[in-house]
This record gives sequence, structure tokens and C-alpha cells, in this order.
Amino acid sequence: MRQRIAVIGGLASGPAAAAQAKRIDPDADVVLFEQGPDISYGACEMPYYVADLIPSAETLVMLTPEAFERTRKAEVRIRHRVLAIHPQRCRLDVKDLATGAITEQRFDKFILAVGAHARLPDVDGVEAPNVFPMRSLEDARALKGYLADHRVEHAVILGGGYIGVEMAEALREREVRVTVLQPSGGLLHTYLDEAFQPLVHDVVQRHGVVVRRERAEGFDVDAEGKVRAVRTDKGEKIGCQVVIVAIGIVPNTELAEAAGITRGATGALAVDAQMRTNLPNVWACGDCVEVERVIDSKKIHLPLSPVSFRTARVAATNAARRGRGTPVRFPGVVGASAVKVFELEVASVGLRLAEAQQAGFDAFAMNIKHWSRVSFYPGAKRLHVGLVVDRRKGRLLGAQLVGEEGAILRADVLVPCLRDRWTVHQIKDLDLIYTPPFAPALDPLIVAANEAAKQCNRG
Amino acid sequence: MRQRIAVIGGLASGPAAAAQAKRIDPDADVVLFEQGPDISYGACEMPYYVADLIPSAETLVMLTPEAFERTRKAEVRIRHRVLAIHPQRCRLDVKDLATGAITEQRFDKFILAVGAHARLPDVDGVEAPNVFPMRSLEDARALKGYLADHRVEHAVILGGGYIGVEMAEALREREVRVTVLQPSGGLLHTYLDEAFQPLVHDVVQRHGVVVRRERAEGFDVDAEGKVRAVRTDKGEKIGCQVVIVAIGIVPNTELAEAAGITRGATGALAVDAQMRTNLPNVWACGDCVEVERVIDSKKIHLPLSPVSFRTARVAATNAARRGRGTPVRFPGVVGASAVKVFELEVASVGLRLAEAQQAGFDAFAMNIKHWSRVSFYPGAKRLHVGLVVDRRKGRLLGAQLVGEEGAILRADVLVPCLRDRWTVHQIKDLDLIYTPPFAPALDPLIVAANEAAKQCNRG
Repeated sequence: MRQRIAVIGGLASGPAAAAQAKRIDPDADVVLFEQGPDISYGACEMPYYVADLIPSAETLVMLTPEAFERTRKAEVRIRHRVLAIHPQRCRLDVKDLATGAITEQRFDKFILAVGAHARLPDVDGVEAPNVFPMRSLEDARALKGYLADHRVEHAVILGGGYIGVEMAEALREREVRVTVLQPSGGLLHTYLDEAFQPLVHDVVQRHGVVVRRERAEGFDVDAEGKVRAVRTDKGEKIGCQVVIVAIGIVPNTELAEAAGITRGATGALAVDAQMRTNLPNVWACGDCVEVERVIDSKKIHLPLSPVSFRTARVAATNAARRGRGTPVRFPGVVGASAVKVFELEVASVGLRLAEAQQAGFDAFAMNIKHWSRVSFYPGAKRLHVGLVVDRRKGRLLGAQLVGEEGAILRADVLVPCLRDRWTVHQIKDLDLIYTPPFAPALDPLIVAANEAAKQCNRG
Repeated sequence: MRQRIAVIGGLASGPAAAAQAKRIDPDADVVLFEQGPDISYGACEMPYYVADLIPSAETLVMLTPEAFERTRKAEVRIRHRVLAIHPQRCRLDVKDLATGAITEQRFDKFILAVGAHARLPDVDGVEAPNVFPMRSLEDARALKGYLADHRVEHAVILGGGYIGVEMAEALREREVRVTVLQPSGGLLHTYLDEAFQPLVHDVVQRHGVVVRRERAEGFDVDAEGKVRAVRTDKGEKIGCQVVIVAIGIVPNTELAEAAGITRGATGALAVDAQMRTNLPNVWACGDCVEVERVIDSKKIHLPLSPVSFRTARVAATNAARRGRGTPVRFPGVVGASAVKVFELEVASVGLRLAEAQQAGFDAFAMNIKHWSRVSFYPGAKRLHVGLVVDRRKGRLLGAQLVGEEGAILRADVLVPCLRDRWTVHQIKDLDLIYTPPFAPALDPLIVAANEAAKQCNRG
């Protein structure tokens, strides 16, 4: 008998899961439900669309629903909201948002790819038409439309994480004045240890972005219902024509919890390495689940696109395989991310120093500056490298790289090292490439590992 | 009693060894002998000096003899040629090239850092003043002086290895017409499998470099003794004002062989992992030794600067330690190198397909094209990735990356993978960074590993 598999959620992990399920079991009926109008788009590219570097929202759509159905052979139901799942009864309730009709449908297996939503500040006026979270393609389209139709001279961005910083750059590209409210910690403080935050503050300030250590406590709303100023916890009032909300995202767990599916300590859905939830016919993947960080075996919520794709493939393979072959396992994450901040590349892999210490390591940070190319080759830039190291054995626990060139791909070099639990003694012996226009004789990673190794010997 | 350590050779490994010996045993008398006028310079930067990207030869000198003595505390004897070493008698014979005086000096230990010399073609006229090997800083100074003082419209470069290709670019930068003679194989054929060579040929030809599959068989020399044309094995005569010789380098082994030191199968000096020769008080390092390639445990001659520095540190530590501590070992090489060819980055790590098959692996190549950034982010370039893989277990044996951006540092990511004998199945699960301006959601390395993994499953 043909199995019926429901995939709920259409952004990144949902389409990946639906396509993979059909690959594994071409006979299965696979249906992808998405409440919005779009599936399969590049959310990470939205700031560049707002900046006009990418002119059309359609460019961000990898596959339209029609193209997805044609090429991936799964059915797609956009503008359909799944109201409830009943895994024990093999049923779900779904509402067609166009007609309002609610139907109950039978499925053998469920893959939750329900994603996450933008955290919103608890202030009146957050629903105003000029307040924009930056989570879905509709958000980006709405902001870009608003910028086209209104005179926007000043924007306030709530939050200085990577979306806040990327949006600050996007709006500066459009010559909008920008104030970022980052009440505690520095910009990108969940990615960078304190030593590196001044580099980010310097570059955004050089580009005219104002950063204030204040929290939004209220909005002044005009007669049209638009926010005209942000009031802060320091009693300040900041006039603006647009507010961007980028204070974090929250996994969508209501549907799952109502069905009896367990959350982990992070608040996201708990899954095992096969991406199984606690219910036997429900798998989950993408931004709604937590994953294991291999460095300290801790469960973390890491809502990044490559994690979504990879967990989706694991979930769908296991859901669709009908006992054939062996289950596939998600090998966990190192945790690797990066962001462009004007001319700076900012990359972070593994644990920050504070995280490493919290995890119980006797950790120290070795921060060095070196050159991205041979120092006297034209165009050489300073590269800041910080290694987080366990003093006892010299094991690498994490790293941060910041500079105008060669930071992001160099951070990638440490991903296999972190996965194989390398020490800085091993890293300093790596025969990395030397070629004057791209890398000095002693690569910055080697210089940092050498210095860190000395600390370990002494320590 | 203070030990006396002689270090013979002053380019890269010699100064590194002398400095390290003093670090390990500050009481030792360490003397560095160099027959030329310079020590401690960046030979890899010479093409960029010829191109005028780096204006002065002095910029290439990391430490003058005086600065070296002052900061590293070892004595330096430039313009001193070591004529013979007598390790059993703890003596060496050295000639002061300024005075012609020959003296015998006592040393307890000898570190051979004698390097390599340019292979010269066996034709009359090779000593002409407008024929330039490109090995020492004197060669580069001589060529640059000649270009400044003479009308040079056309240069013939013998050899299309990385020095030949870099010199072709350097001379095109100076608007000299260039013909490269590469009799067999394509340009860079010792780094790249055949599939990638057309990319290199295309870019050099686009920049006006003529490549001919011909061998120089003779030079036409004018009344002043200058070469005016190169005659080839196809009976052609190519007029030129300058000839560059870049047909390979040969380790300098005469001094060592005369003292009874053994060479390996590559022709370079044989050393163990401690950089010991077959004589108990003689170590060797740098371009005169062969090293173990960890992928296939084969001894190779890999005359690259990072290998020189690293073998020098091992040799000097072991030579100077006087039985204290434990001997340090050189962990071998993966073999990683890269070259800029006009706008192309060309990188090669580990084994080429032909090398892997020769080494007895059931190897195949997976060659893919993907994007250096998100495809629709402005500036994205095609990146060619070729993985060389052992079909039986999917183990990665080598890789070649060629493209206008992101090739060289991405090749570095595979260096730890090669060292830890990773399979493509492990590489496809690597959580490499995704950020639209620098890396697509599926990094080119992941795309290549995914495709290669499918071949292994089928195979």
C-alpha cells in the first residue's frame, strides 16, 4: 500500500524533506503544506533584496509551487494552514485559507518543518504597518514596497544580531539613516567574544549607523496608526519612519505540543539523531528542532539554512524508507556561521570563550592579528583570529575570525578540525597553502595555533 | 661545553634552523653559512617584484644578515661557500668568496639547508646575460635590471610549471609579449589533472600569452653573446630579447654526497621523521630533502616554503636539544599548493588522479562546477572542484580547485580532511559556513562530495 506523508512547512526544510521523501519512496503520496504564498526561498538573501543588490523577490524563490510539483513530484498546498495533527489517528486538520474550508486528511507519517517566527517586542503598536519583522519573504516584500512608496529617512532596528546588522547595512545602502538598539552586549554578541565586538562597532559607525545601548519600551503611533518614534528605557524618544524587529526568533512548537510532542531545554522540539520526535510516526527538522553540538554534546537551537537542509534529508529518509536499508543519522553540528558587515567578514565556529567556560572547559582565548596575504603584497589586510582552546590538552573548542578578506573561508578550515577534536598542536602543523596573493607563508590560522600552543605548554 | 652548530644555506630553511637552534640552546655557537649576498628572503614573491607590484628587492628580504645576527643571536657568514663537510672529524672547509681564503672550522653538528638550483637546459648559450633562471634574489634583480636597461618586447619562457606561469603573468604586466614552451603535458600539469588544464590555457591565452608544445633545442646567440632566438624541436625559430628558464629545480646534494650522505629515490637527501640523515651528527631540511606524503606514505620532493620552515624547526630542535626533552617529529605533508594565474585561483591538494592510480588506489575523479557565492548574489563566479576519491571506501585522496574566487582557501578546508583520512561521506556532512556574499547554501565542496559519494555507493 502507498504510504502518505505530510510535510508541514514550506520554507527550507519542508521542500527539502518533501523532495527527499519522494526520492526515497517514489510511490509515496507526499503533500507539502504551507500557509503562506511562497515555498522554497532564500531567507538569508532578503537583506540583499532590500538593499536592491538583488532586484526582484522572485529571484529569491528557488522553486515555485508549480515547478516544485513538476520536478520533485510531491504535491504542494500553499495557503493551507495545518490546524492540528493527530498522529495516533493518522489524521490532520487543514484549513484552506482561500476558501476557509477545513478538512480532515489521512496521513501515515508526519514531518514537521514548521520553522520559527520572529520574536516581537511586548509593546503597543507592534502591529503598525511600518513595523517589519524580517522573517518571511512577505516581510521583505512589504518593507521594500513601503520604502518605495514612502519617504523614509530614518529607521530604527531593534536588535544587533546578524539580521539587525545585515539590515543596517541594507538600509545604509539605500541612504536611510539607521539607529540600532542593542540593550545588552555588543553587536553580534552571540557570535563574538567581547574582544572582537569593537571591530564590528567601528565598521558600522564608520558607515553612519548609530548604535545605542537602549531597549525599546514603547512606540509613539500617529493618527494613521504608524509608528513615528521609538521610546526607550532611558527615556529617549527616537523619531523614525520605519522600525525593523530583529530581536531573535522563536521555534514554532504549538502545533507539535498540542499533539503531545516534547520540547527540549532550548524550547525547540526534541529529536534524536534520526530526527524522530517522541511520537513514532512524527519526525521534525529545520528551525523548529534542536540539534546536538558535537563539541560539548549540548543540544542547541541553531536556525541556519544548512542545518535545515541536512536535518530535512535525515528526517525524510527515515520517514520514507519503510524499514528498508539502515536509518540515517544526523551527525550533529559544529556551529559555523558568518556575516558580511560592510567591508568586514565576520565568522564564528564552535564555542565562544564564555560558552566554553560555561560548558566546563578550562578554556582560554588566543587572539592574534596577522595578514590575509603576504604583508607587502598589494591589498593585504589585517585579519583578527581568536582561538578558544582547552588549556589542558590544547583542544580547539571554537574560533572567531574578523577581517576585510579571508576570514570566512579560513573559518571553514577549522570545521573539520573541530569535528575531529584536533588540538592546536595539530593545527600548527597543518600544511596550509602559501601563495603571496592569497596567504602568507605562515597562515594566520597557523600563527594563532602556534601562539595558543605556547600557552598550553606553559599552562 | 658549548656545542657548535653549522647551518649551511641561507634562503628559507637555513635561517629558520639557525634561529630555532639558538632558541633551543641559547648557549650554542650557531653559524649560518651562505655563499650569496642575501639571506632570508621571499623567493615566492619574486614574480611580483619583477611585475613591479612589489617595487624593491629589499622588501623581499625579511632579515638582513645584520638584523638576523642582532635578533636571532646566530652568526651569519654571507659570501662564504662551504666546500666540504667532514662530519666524522667534526670539521668543515669554507671559502670566503671575498678574500678567497679557505679555512677549516670545527663544528659538532651540521644542519644542511642547502636548497636546490634551477635545472638548466642542455644547450649552448644558456650562460648568456639575457637568459635568466628564476631561483635566487640575484636572478630576480638581474632580470629586473635587464628589463629596465634594455628594450624587451618578447620573452620566451622555458617551462609551464608554476614559476613559468607566474613569470608569464609578471611579464605581461610589464607589457612584454610572452611565449611559453611547454613540450609535454599542459600548463601546471604536475598540479592539475587534464580536465582542469584548459582553464589555465584559456586564461593565459586571453591575456596574450602564446603557449607552444615545443622544446628548446638551441639558442641563436649574437655577436655580443646575447640570445636572439630560441630554436625548437619542431624546427621553429622564436625571436626574443629575454629567455626565462623555469623547467624545474634540482636539490643540491653534492656537498652531502661527498660526505657520504644518502639520497632517496627522488634524488633529494633521505631523512627520517626527525630530519636526521644517515650520519649521526648531520640533519637536513628544506628544498634539499625529501618528505613523506601522508596520503600514500610515499617520499616526495616538495620544494615549498612552508615545508622548508617546518622541516627546519624539526631539524634544528633535534640537533640542538642535547638529549633534553623528546625528539620532535615532522608529521609529513599532505601536499598543498596554489598559484594565481591572472584572474584565476588554481589550487591543488593531495594526489592528482594519475598519482592516485599510480599509487595503487582504485581512484576516480568527480569534477563539478558550482558557484563561489549564492548564484544570484552580485559577483558570483563559477568554481571548478575536482575531488580524487578512492572508490572502495570513498576516501578523499586529493582535490583541485580552479576559479576566479574562493578556490585557494576552500582547498585549505580539505587539508585537515586529507590528514585525517576522511571519506567524501564525511565531507558531505561538514557544516561549512553559508552566507550569500561568500558561500552558497551548499558549498561547492559539499556539492562535489555529494556527487562523489553517489559514485562510491554505485561502485
